[in-house]
Amino acid sequence: MINSDVIQAANAKAVDRLEADYAALGAHLDRRGIDIAAIKAKVAKYGVAIPSWGVGTGGTRFARFPGSGEPRDIFDKLDDCGVIHQLTTATPSVSLHIPWDAQPAADLNSKAEEVGLTFDAMNSNTFQDQPDQTHSYKFGSLSHTDAATRQQAVHHNIACIELGAQIGSKALTIWVGDGSNFPGQTNFTRQFERYLDATRQVYDTLPDDWTLLTEHKMYEPAFYSTVVQDWGTNLLIAQQLGDKAKCLVDLGHHAPNVNIEMIVARLTQFGKLGGFHFNDSKYGDDDLDTGSIDPYRLFLVFNELVEAESNPDFNPMHMLDQSHNVTDPIESLMVSAMEVQRAYAQALLVDRAALEGYQDSNDALMATTTLKDGFRTNVEPILAMARLEKGGAIDPVAAYRASRYRAQVSEDRPAVSGAGGGIV
Amino acid sequence: MINSDVIQAANAKAVDRLEADYAALGAHLDRRGIDIAAIKAKVAKYGVAIPSWGVGTGGTRFARFPGSGEPRDIFDKLDDCGVIHQLTTATPSVSLHIPWDAQPAADLNSKAEEVGLTFDAMNSNTFQDQPDQTHSYKFGSLSHTDAATRQQAVHHNIACIELGAQIGSKALTIWVGDGSNFPGQTNFTRQFERYLDATRQVYDTLPDDWTLLTEHKMYEPAFYSTVVQDWGTNLLIAQQLGDKAKCLVDLGHHAPNVNIEMIVARLTQFGKLGGFHFNDSKYGDDDLDTGSIDPYRLFLVFNELVEAESNPDFNPMHMLDQSHNVTDPIESLMVSAMEVQRAYAQALLVDRAALEGYQDSNDALMATTTLKDGFRTNVEPILAMARLEKGGAIDPVAAYRASRYRAQVSEDRPAVSGAGGGIV
Amino acid sequence: MINSDVIQAANAKAVDRLEADYAALGAHLDRRGIDIAAIKAKVAKYGVAIPSWGVGTGGTRFARFPGSGEPRDIFDKLDDCGVIHQLTTATPSVSLHIPWDAQPAADLNSKAEEVGLTFDAMNSNTFQDQPDQTHSYKFGSLSHTDAATRQQAVHHNIACIELGAQIGSKALTIWVGDGSNFPGQTNFTRQFERYLDATRQVYDTLPDDWTLLTEHKMYEPAFYSTVVQDWGTNLLIAQQLGDKAKCLVDLGHHAPNVNIEMIVARLTQFGKLGGFHFNDSKYGDDDLDTGSIDPYRLFLVFNELVEAESNPDFNPMHMLDQSHNVTDPIESLMVSAMEVQRAYAQALLVDRAALEGYQDSNDALMATTTLKDGFRTNVEPILAMARLEKGGAIDPVAAYRASRYRAQVSEDRPAVSGAGGGIV
Amino acid sequence: MINSDVIQAANAKAVDRLEADYAALGAHLDRRGIDIAAIKAKVAKYGVAIPSWGVGTGGTRFARFPGSGEPRDIFDKLDDCGVIHQLTTATPSVSLHIPWDAQPAADLNSKAEEVGLTFDAMNSNTFQDQPDQTHSYKFGSLSHTDAATRQQAVHHNIACIELGAQIGSKALTIWVGDGSNFPGQTNFTRQFERYLDATRQVYDTLPDDWTLLTEHKMYEPAFYSTVVQDWGTNLLIAQQLGDKAKCLVDLGHHAPNVNIEMIVARLTQFGKLGGFHFNDSKYGDDDLDTGSIDPYRLFLVFNELVEAESNPDFNPMHMLDQSHNVTDPIESLMVSAMEVQRAYAQALLVDRAALEGYQDSNDALMATTTLKDGFRTNVEPILAMARLEKGGAIDPVAAYRASRYRAQVSEDRPAVSGAGGGIV
Repeated sequence: MINSDVIQAANAKAVDRLEADYAALGAHLDRRGIDIAAIKAKVAKYGVAIPSWGVGTGGTRFARFPGSGEPRDIFDKLDDCGVIHQLTTATPSVSLHIPWDAQPAADLNSKAEEVGLTFDAMNSNTFQDQPDQTHSYKFGSLSHTDAATRQQAVHHNIACIELGAQIGSKALTIWVGDGSNFPGQTNFTRQFERYLDATRQVYDTLPDDWTLLTEHKMYEPAFYSTVVQDWGTNLLIAQQLGDKAKCLVDLGHHAPNVNIEMIVARLTQFGKLGGFHFNDSKYGDDDLDTGSIDPYRLFLVFNELVEAESNPDFNPMHMLDQSHNVTDPIESLMVSAMEVQRAYAQALLVDRAALEGYQDSNDALMATTTLKDGFRTNVEPILAMARLEKGGAIDPVAAYRASRYRAQVSEDRPAVSGAGGGIV
Repeated sequence: MINSDVIQAANAKAVDRLEADYAALGAHLDRRGIDIAAIKAKVAKYGVAIPSWGVGTGGTRFARFPGSGEPRDIFDKLDDCGVIHQLTTATPSVSLHIPWDAQPAADLNSKAEEVGLTFDAMNSNTFQDQPDQTHSYKFGSLSHTDAATRQQAVHHNIACIELGAQIGSKALTIWVGDGSNFPGQTNFTRQFERYLDATRQVYDTLPDDWTLLTEHKMYEPAFYSTVVQDWGTNLLIAQQLGDKAKCLVDLGHHAPNVNIEMIVARLTQFGKLGGFHFNDSKYGDDDLDTGSIDPYRLFLVFNELVEAESNPDFNPMHMLDQSHNVTDPIESLMVSAMEVQRAYAQALLVDRAALEGYQDSNDALMATTTLKDGFRTNVEPILAMARLEKGGAIDPVAAYRASRYRAQVSEDRPAVSGAGGGIV
Repeated sequence: MINSDVIQAANAKAVDRLEADYAALGAHLDRRGIDIAAIKAKVAKYGVAIPSWGVGTGGTRFARFPGSGEPRDIFDKLDDCGVIHQLTTATPSVSLHIPWDAQPAADLNSKAEEVGLTFDAMNSNTFQDQPDQTHSYKFGSLSHTDAATRQQAVHHNIACIELGAQIGSKALTIWVGDGSNFPGQTNFTRQFERYLDATRQVYDTLPDDWTLLTEHKMYEPAFYSTVVQDWGTNLLIAQQLGDKAKCLVDLGHHAPNVNIEMIVARLTQFGKLGGFHFNDSKYGDDDLDTGSIDPYRLFLVFNELVEAESNPDFNPMHMLDQSHNVTDPIESLMVSAMEVQRAYAQALLVDRAALEGYQDSNDALMATTTLKDGFRTNVEPILAMARLEKGGAIDPVAAYRASRYRAQVSEDRPAVSGAGGGIV
Repeated sequence: MINSDVIQAANAKAVDRLEADYAALGAHLDRRGIDIAAIKAKVAKYGVAIPSWGVGTGGTRFARFPGSGEPRDIFDKLDDCGVIHQLTTATPSVSLHIPWDAQPAADLNSKAEEVGLTFDAMNSNTFQDQPDQTHSYKFGSLSHTDAATRQQAVHHNIACIELGAQIGSKALTIWVGDGSNFPGQTNFTRQFERYLDATRQVYDTLPDDWTLLTEHKMYEPAFYSTVVQDWGTNLLIAQQLGDKAKCLVDLGHHAPNVNIEMIVARLTQFGKLGGFHFNDSKYGDDDLDTGSIDPYRLFLVFNELVEAESNPDFNPMHMLDQSHNVTDPIESLMVSAMEVQRAYAQALLVDRAALEGYQDSNDALMATTTLKDGFRTNVEPILAMARLEKGGAIDPVAAYRASRYRAQVSEDRPAVSGAGGGIV
């Protein structure tokens, strides 16, 4: 963790400016009939989970260029996640990936307590072969043509639930790479039947208070078809399995031009929105930092979420899922967590009574202007003040850099070389 | 109709070549263990419906450049459709569009009998305002915020069913342009609730042996959101309404890169594939001639349909839906009907037992090669022989041109000027 | 024009709030080392041209739903444009479309003077057939296979220049719909040779101080290929023709996912960026209101423009080009002009010295944060104060609605019915 | 190499059928006025280069699942390439990738002679860091902000030319991963200036009879911008550098929906088409087997190439570039080489005089039908007969499987484990 003196020193330089900005924004919002303190209170309660794998440097099939001080294991990763939460106060939980993070539950719990974090959804991995694995996932996992391979994937998922139950997790997220690279390689229908049958076996072991989140993705690693290719198929899965099965939406897993906020609305309407993987993308599943490419799209997603907040049963899980290839992962995750908070704060500012009136009278121009009024508001002072009041940093990146955390951990954590893809 | 002497004269020039090609193909297929006569018999029974509006020259928002001899009304259109079926023997039915084609049932039936056609699905129109209309569809129809406007749209759809029932139709296809052009213009959830409520009123009046086909489309005429934007929403509609409600798939209504054959498989698997609008596209809903841009994609769709044929309950409706901007619509529709037949014939040639074996053993290369073996076979002699034996033309376009049909109808049908869009 | 009392009354209600917001923003910017007055001065000088056709209600190939008080001719259109400029003070010029707006130069000049506007680029129309036209553009215009048709299109473009020269225009924008709907319909190379040859004839008549702007577009109205399909072909045209030929970038004319700001940078670097058609899009050439779908993308374009501002020869033309299907066109154009100004103001706030430093040291996170600092700033008080000081409205939409301008012109301008497409 | 007895035994089983099919096709083509022997002769002379890296199993950022008998080095790879050419007689050359394939020239030449191959274009690699490398390419190579890094990349490219000159290569292909992941990370203009400057240093060392091929790609591994993002930028590079610089087109490197055959035509028209990387894709740069997803698109590319063949200066290089994740790479490369040949043969069948006539008279339907007549013809007997006559296999995949080559090399080549990405 970072020495609190460092944070306080950094905050001391910025606090006057923040207070001036916060006061000005408060006065402005007051003129719009909005109580800044109420918004700040909601923002302060908001949190988004960090994926454990996100604190390592990402890569592409062509290359990976590691940074210094790469975490060696889940305990290093939890240290890094702890720093992110310490500075942003916005990331109270971590989502584990098994088998990468498989360690005794007691050790995980103890480390989590040490760094002030809890555990979010468990993630299984049947898209890679592990050294000790009997059956290969080269041609699929839960939907493989071979029953023994499917069974192996089922058991792995059940093991994830069992570990999760010991560390306070309440959800399992299943993403599979199953699909095909050639027309005809698989029979779409039989493949999906096998997937449903295997996934039902996992579902049947789920504790009562758990949720099974299935994740759709248009393509990659399969390049002709993917077994859970879109929200339509994802919805069918959730319908077939039962009430504890819900859909997870990763913002980067859709076809070009798709209206994602509308998918969020549809899944919400039919009780099947289970959670998010936040990130941003310009081309495919680019896994870029959340809000870095199209911040208005992120806002429109949160507009749907705030719209649905009044329903007490509506409680989707929020997680970041990004690949940090050219930045310090800790910095990217801090900035991304703040972007998610920002979109939430902006959506909270929307005058929903006015919006509904414009919608009912088909005043398209004023309806969209009403949304824009929320989006355009610079809510940074609200986010910063919420952080400050919770003991975090006014400017987390500046405080982090001042702390020299990366340099310090680099002394303990050995340098690693990039895995050359050898693939074009 | 075209004088049969013209057809026979045209066929006389081509028959020797056809017989040679047919014999050679028969011998080739025999070496592959396939009985050409059995394939030809299936092809001969296949038919695709013509959309009544397809025989007029299409256009874009920028301009429409009419051809000569444009049909003046549904009776002219039925004449044109009759010619298409006479020459191709592949288009036994016509799909009407109301109110464009609204005429007394007796007159429609009598004309249809005269030209040897029947009536396929009815199509309602709530995406345009008609001169005598009380409420405008500018801001929607079945999902409009105003109850009276929704009711007007419901009544129009019911009127379509009533007319259809008198002319032997068994289905209503609903496509609406409802959506929005701005974020915030509509509340996605309330809009969809209104749509479901109104459409259920239509559904409730459906005769027992009818099907309600709803059609999804990603965008256009609405450019930010569309109420039935994809197959996921379309599936929800069919699920909500009941067993007589099924989904219609227009090949041009999807996001870029989407795997359409997989959507066909999913809807088939869950009993909700109701029918097709065949066409082709390179960019958006281009409504180009079927198979003109990506003939292999069309084949892959038919691969799914042939795969499902063994199920006796599987009987989706097949219709062309194209916009002919630079060709004689009769020619384009004839060629397109033959392209659909071609894809069907190619799919029939696939060795399904071998394919299943390759799929089960994950032999991706041989599986896809097995599909390609069907696609690569030049089945033109089968199609042509089936036409010849049913009294059609070996080469419908050549026979049509020889008939001078277009020049003849142009004498009766007045020239029309292009509607300048005035829109950029 | 709108009575200035109406504007003053509307401003009176909003001025206190504006002054408070402006003062607060000034203080905030001062803390960031930015002089708000300098930004405001630049914003006040900025103007974007209105397309004459933009003040009429747009439509799609399916339908057009006109509003009330549609302008009957260019003189009505200039009245509407005058109102837009009066209220926003941001749209000093109008871009004419010939033959729609063809009127005696003296009448145009006199009306423009009356409403306080000048004339921007001329636009020719060879994508529609006019009633009195000898040769049809159904199969192309400047690239048509027939020499006489090409010559007709050349003469029309020259006539546009001649009229433009009399009304103070300094540019001709050529957009053609030429292309093809089927593979093989045209020979790409010969078609482009014909286009270049014909366009060179137009170029050769250009006055010395004029610019020829050619506009690329991926598709529509042609749906398989378009003769000027992208910036690569557009660049070739400008290179082949000469120094007075430059490229026009319409934000909606690109393939999905394309990085448009990068195209802007490339054309700028090689001296070939001639101008813009601003609008926004989610799917294709949707012609939605500028900044309504992806305001950050608009900002990134302006980031390039501000980056290039220091070059005194850099002076691209700025024009809106939108289709207003569900809003009052005057309102949409006012809001869009303000969105363009907003993006410009936000881009002016970017700390370019800091940005360059982060770029040189590959500090990707701080580089992008530096851009975001500009984008996130709510510059509305700057825009509003600039308007107020120039005699415009603090809130142009509110003032416009208060003026009842639309209702008043509807008394003189007869209601028109929507052109039903008859096209599916 | 494979024992010729195996090939002959396999051919013996298939030769009667081939002769019957070839005779039937010859008779059919004769009825169309085409001499089958002339087509076969052209096909027999056609060759496409194999990328050395293509014979290893590919992977994605998520995982790589190796097959058995993976080649250990360039000498193993040349063995595999030799087998491909032996069986298909269509792949006479190999394209090396440096440093992966860097070995003494004498050893390379001797091995190539042994397996009957020559060397095609050299490929440099500045998208990965090599163990002994001074400067990292994490933030770019030829366009890096740091001069020493750019120089290192320049030297590496020059070394590739020097090795290539000793092994008979006549071209260097440069593909860089340089770009950015965040708006603002790089200055587009300065980055491109650096790229041009560095690449010019490579160009200046090029022997007189060499070609420099630069390759554009929309995205990946950079996910916001890529320095050579499209053919427009690629064209600028070739124009800036000089006559020996030309553009390489990889079929998978374009935006969704882009008309690639038109880009081929444009580059051909302006003398800048240098070569191809053939593959296929459904979503992004999927690197699937050539012709496996959209065989008609491949045909349309070859339609342009055959159109340009009459120009004696037109001689672009042809290479496969694929990633084989789920098939035996040798099988995929054989099938892909045959697909390229197939598209070439089909394009040769097009009646170009008739096509030109239909184009000139705007008979779109007959023009596109004329193309389709070429595409629909099943040219497999021509390809197979050409192989047979040159000593290859009638059915290369069947002969290869019969040879048990993979099992045999697996005895010498050790099993390798999949590189787990560790990246989501």
